[in-house]
Amino acid sequence: MEIDIKSKILIVGLGLIGGSYARALKKKGYSVSAITRRQSSIDFALKEGIIDYGTIKPEEKLISSADIVVFSLYPHVFIDWIEKYGKYLRPGTLVTDVTGVKESIVYKIQDMLPEGVEFIAAHPMAGREVYGVENSDERIFKGANYIVTPTEKNSSEAVEKCLELGRLIGFEKLSVLSPREHDDVIGFLSQLTHCIAIALMTCRTDEHLEKYTGDSFRDLTRIARINDEMWSELFMLNKNTLVHEIDIFEKELDKLKKYLETGDVESMREMMRFSTERRAKFDKKTD
Amino acid sequence: MEIDIKSKILIVGLGLIGGSYARALKKKGYSVSAITRRQSSIDFALKEGIIDYGTIKPEEKLISSADIVVFSLYPHVFIDWIEKYGKYLRPGTLVTDVTGVKESIVYKIQDMLPEGVEFIAAHPMAGREVYGVENSDERIFKGANYIVTPTEKNSSEAVEKCLELGRLIGFEKLSVLSPREHDDVIGFLSQLTHCIAIALMTCRTDEHLEKYTGDSFRDLTRIARINDEMWSELFMLNKNTLVHEIDIFEKELDKLKKYLETGDVESMREMMRFSTERRAKFDKKTD
Repeated sequence: MEIDIKSKILIVGLGLIGGSYARALKKKGYSVSAITRRQSSIDFALKEGIIDYGTIKPEEKLISSADIVVFSLYPHVFIDWIEKYGKYLRPGTLVTDVTGVKESIVYKIQDMLPEGVEFIAAHPMAGREVYGVENSDERIFKGANYIVTPTEKNSSEAVEKCLELGRLIGFEKLSVLSPREHDDVIGFLSQLTHCIAIALMTCRTDEHLEKYTGDSFRDLTRIARINDEMWSELFMLNKNTLVHEIDIFEKELDKLKKYLETGDVESMREMMRFSTERRAKFDKKTD
Repeated sequence: MEIDIKSKILIVGLGLIGGSYARALKKKGYSVSAITRRQSSIDFALKEGIIDYGTIKPEEKLISSADIVVFSLYPHVFIDWIEKYGKYLRPGTLVTDVTGVKESIVYKIQDMLPEGVEFIAAHPMAGREVYGVENSDERIFKGANYIVTPTEKNSSEAVEKCLELGRLIGFEKLSVLSPREHDDVIGFLSQLTHCIAIALMTCRTDEHLEKYTGDSFRDLTRIARINDEMWSELFMLNKNTLVHEIDIFEKELDKLKKYLETGDVESMREMMRFSTERRAKFDKKTD
């Protein structure tokens, strides 16, 4: 399903991801507007030609004229926004998002929207450790994964259109998962990895360790630079799953520790060979 | 202390690291020879101009004419080699290495060498997930750390010369640690990170996870591609330290899990802010 080149796209929340979406869609020839909190973000985006129009006010005219609206906000801000301004959305508009958790927000948002406005959630699996539209770059999506998480309320047309949006933006692998499946895999692939990076970064605080480190520690802690406001919210919204993933991981690490303690070198090596073989699947095409 | 440009340097073990050392030293104008196991490595290195001479035989004449010998072998192979051919080393020769553990081998090697041959251990904190001289590249040392681990048997001249070798090869930060201190920081920075990567890669084996992953999981498991023979040996030689580091890390991860379970968002955010601040120190200059 093609997305009509005349479609008016509105980005709500013009940060790193919202800004990168805007860049990608502008380059494809779409008309892109933005509503965001800081005037400086709008000024920057207009100056850079990332958007055609932008405002810090949730203008009814702008909202009701959009064909596709992409929300790139913290979960609770997203819900507040829909509560206040969702009524301005016109029937026929397709609403999507980039939120990192799904089960706790997708059904809620779908229930809140006016009749005829369809919300189809999506999660771009890309990011950087920097923030703001000033750091936006559509190339972060090159070779990256994109997950659409429909519910039984969604039409197959909306699913197709949302997948096409991902394709347009430049994602490599497009997938469809239920909100629950999404939160399960993301609890493991993304949230657990952030917890590990944080714990690794904070468990030893002796000075000068940076003088002795190699790239492995740098790689494992890259994401230890973390937006505490956003991630603590995402963690809490997927709490039970994340606690379960931490347990699974620690059990496996304990297994390796046991092999070490008992000198079971053969089992250790078998685990390493399996790890090596399995890792090969996870390379990005652009690596 | 300068290293005389007429010094004859011999690399024993011409793999990724040995080959990268050879490349760096050749470019600085030194005469570099190599002894290694595979004839194809010698052929490749000669063809590429990485070495001036190479052989798969431990030739007495070659060994006794070297001024500096760098060993880049598995720990047990290194010890076997010194046992068999150490007698060929001439008094006045400086012996160094690149081995990933120190306490369990440094004193042993120092005791085995002929009178007048000084062994000063070193550890280049750089590597890649590929092997062999065919993948060698001296640029992996750019901006990287280098640790020299002298014992009370070492002369200050040897320590200085070994540091100068690191400088010549291109390392950015040069440090001196005791073998014990080395094994302690490396147990944490390098060995623990490899254990974490392996456990993360093997703890969930559901298919198609690669379709949903972002860069964080890729980063944390890059080193899950691991040489099982080498790393199991390194782990076992630093067993008690590594077990201790795993415990420290798990305790910290449990702390984060507890904050999550009890909904203690403020403590979670404080941990994230500390992690963010601390991580800034670990950037490579070339990042």
